[in-house]
Amino acid sequence: MCCAEAVQQITYEVTDHTALITLNRPDARNAYTSQMADEIVVALAAAAGDGDVRVVVLTGAGADFCVGADLSGGRLKVVEKQADQPWLEPASRVTRPLYEFDKPVIAAVTGAAVGVGSTMILPADFRIAAQDSRFGFVFSRRGLYPEGGSTWFLPRLVGLGRASDWMISGRLIPATEALNAGLVTELRPAEDVLDRALELAEEIATTTAPVSTAVIRKALARMSTLESPDAVFGLDSRLIDSCSDSADTLEGITSFLERRPPRFPGRVPDDLPDFLPW
Amino acid sequence: MCCAEAVQQITYEVTDHTALITLNRPDARNAYTSQMADEIVVALAAAAGDGDVRVVVLTGAGADFCVGADLSGGRLKVVEKQADQPWLEPASRVTRPLYEFDKPVIAAVTGAAVGVGSTMILPADFRIAAQDSRFGFVFSRRGLYPEGGSTWFLPRLVGLGRASDWMISGRLIPATEALNAGLVTELRPAEDVLDRALELAEEIATTTAPVSTAVIRKALARMSTLESPDAVFGLDSRLIDSCSDSADTLEGITSFLERRPPRFPGRVPDDLPDFLPW
Amino acid sequence: MCCAEAVQQITYEVTDHTALITLNRPDARNAYTSQMADEIVVALAAAAGDGDVRVVVLTGAGADFCVGADLSGGRLKVVEKQADQPWLEPASRVTRPLYEFDKPVIAAVTGAAVGVGSTMILPADFRIAAQDSRFGFVFSRRGLYPEGGSTWFLPRLVGLGRASDWMISGRLIPATEALNAGLVTELRPAEDVLDRALELAEEIATTTAPVSTAVIRKALARMSTLESPDAVFGLDSRLIDSCSDSADTLEGITSFLERRPPRFPGRVPDDLPDFLPW
Repeated sequence: MCCAEAVQQITYEVTDHTALITLNRPDARNAYTSQMADEIVVALAAAAGDGDVRVVVLTGAGADFCVGADLSGGRLKVVEKQADQPWLEPASRVTRPLYEFDKPVIAAVTGAAVGVGSTMILPADFRIAAQDSRFGFVFSRRGLYPEGGSTWFLPRLVGLGRASDWMISGRLIPATEALNAGLVTELRPAEDVLDRALELAEEIATTTAPVSTAVIRKALARMSTLESPDAVFGLDSRLIDSCSDSADTLEGITSFLERRPPRFPGRVPDDLPDFLPW
Repeated sequence: MCCAEAVQQITYEVTDHTALITLNRPDARNAYTSQMADEIVVALAAAAGDGDVRVVVLTGAGADFCVGADLSGGRLKVVEKQADQPWLEPASRVTRPLYEFDKPVIAAVTGAAVGVGSTMILPADFRIAAQDSRFGFVFSRRGLYPEGGSTWFLPRLVGLGRASDWMISGRLIPATEALNAGLVTELRPAEDVLDRALELAEEIATTTAPVSTAVIRKALARMSTLESPDAVFGLDSRLIDSCSDSADTLEGITSFLERRPPRFPGRVPDDLPDFLPW
Repeated sequence: MCCAEAVQQITYEVTDHTALITLNRPDARNAYTSQMADEIVVALAAAAGDGDVRVVVLTGAGADFCVGADLSGGRLKVVEKQADQPWLEPASRVTRPLYEFDKPVIAAVTGAAVGVGSTMILPADFRIAAQDSRFGFVFSRRGLYPEGGSTWFLPRLVGLGRASDWMISGRLIPATEALNAGLVTELRPAEDVLDRALELAEEIATTTAPVSTAVIRKALARMSTLESPDAVFGLDSRLIDSCSDSADTLEGITSFLERRPPRFPGRVPDDLPDFLPW
């Protein structure tokens, strides 16, 4: 456990190959604060630097994932500028490192995921949600704006039409609609959501190569946005070429042919290819 | 009502906070003409400049929304070049201002929406359609090309695969397929489509902040297309920072905490942030 | 039939207006080799240059479309560098010309489409699949990387969220999930898949204009990726303007008004507009 004394609004624990980050203000329905944002940033850095961590799971304590920015007191308290300029608003503080992250990220959502509760999980790779959960990009109804780069992420997940509908109306999105739209990866009963997320994390940790998944998650968000695939053909050729002397590739093929679980030797970030363009 | 004498192929009326633009050649199944295009442009400008208008609804008189370009006489009459160069084809004349529009736009579609009847509504934010309506990007079957920037808009709404299928085959798309693909926002019986569109317009007008929705609709179409979210994190930070002294934000939070409808003071375009990059 | 002696791992035949390319290593479940890649490239060039060919259908002999790169011998044999630099990995050798192709492409998939079996068909315009087929972007499980520019193509077809799920987990995707996600165009019983693909090819050949479909398929993949639609409005205006003296347009409108099948005179590539930006 990293940085125990500094962490008050979240919890962080590493089990097997999974780092579990839990928003931990259940009495406030995990309402988001600048401090919570900064604690998540510290936890993500700890997970990034821990060689034992293969996958990050992000969840909330109690019935709700996160009801949005803490509005108690009647104002948007997250707007507390600090000396370090340029100021980064608290949702982007979390979504930016998630976009840059080298390990798969699974969000486990129950109850309400509203405002930043919806936007902070857009850069995750998997969103497992309770059947009775609901999402809400409610900014238009509060005289606010979407944050965390969500106008970039959401249309890439669900299409521009659904993103326009959801963000302009500010209405709550039922879990089934979120599933059909591609926002949610799978639905489970609320009591099974975290277990399923941890199970998926274990599946990823035991069946996939860390270097491969690091390259894949960043390539998807970076290559798919280029005007043409021309540069991607070139990158893919360098990547495939590098497989000819890759211990991970040898283990992947050998374990497949021997019908046994793989034990990939490659580690992140030490064994990432040195020619990646990001 | 704007410009009554100039308007012959559409009607334009403002009720409460909604501007209703109706294609009005029902005997010709609202076949599209250059004149109709130019009249829609005038109506959109009137709606943009009318401080009472919060939302635009675009529909067609009679059973069909629009069966495409007027082909009576056996030729594509929309190709009538005018002195003002460069010439803008009639579908783009409408979709370009819709792309630039600062207010939410709802299309209400019954019957057939074919050719430009399908492409002109792609930049709308909501497409409410009749259960028995159908869409058709029939250009390949007429020896024509998609217009109105539709090769940009359609893949962003439904994905590149469905767009390729629909536009290469030129087949008619049933409403349910359009709904599942994300082209259509919701389906209603034909007789309820316009009422539902007006109801949604009223919901948007009474529950959301005009400045927020203006920023959201333009940000979604502009930020989601960037290669990376880096610039979006910066824009979001400026937007959230601007909320600290925003009357809309104060009203949004206060009305939410007081569980009453909001009365947002901000107006478009007067109160738009002055640092928007578009 | 092109180049009969050179073709050993595929078959190529032209019937009516359709070129049928069949991966033909059924005993190896059509496992992919460098030679197969190069043979497909030759076949695509033959189809591109054959004025009788309107549509290409790509399928596999036997029960499976393609189980991925040939791993027999325990290594990735596709990595066999040749003198001609820069080296292009074998999946990109096929997907790059498919991206550049001027004629519609239909993939007909039965059984397993795994690894390059999934990535090589992403630039196709239609993917008709058997109800019991399954797709697999299994690279992470083999210590490999996605190839063929698939990190560009897949998110454009199914959204970034589904692409992340599928490619990071490396799990097999059932055909129904692929259909709902927009990867698959339509599902059929396995024994009907090829017939349906050939039927669709014939529909396209007999109802659509070759020049129109060539422009559409390339415009969709090129215009939808631009940051803004501004350039598309301009291109569309030039295209629509060119319709005023287009024999295809005249035939398309006339045959439509006369309710008879069209006979489009335009041919690809001879009659493509000379102002296309690609």
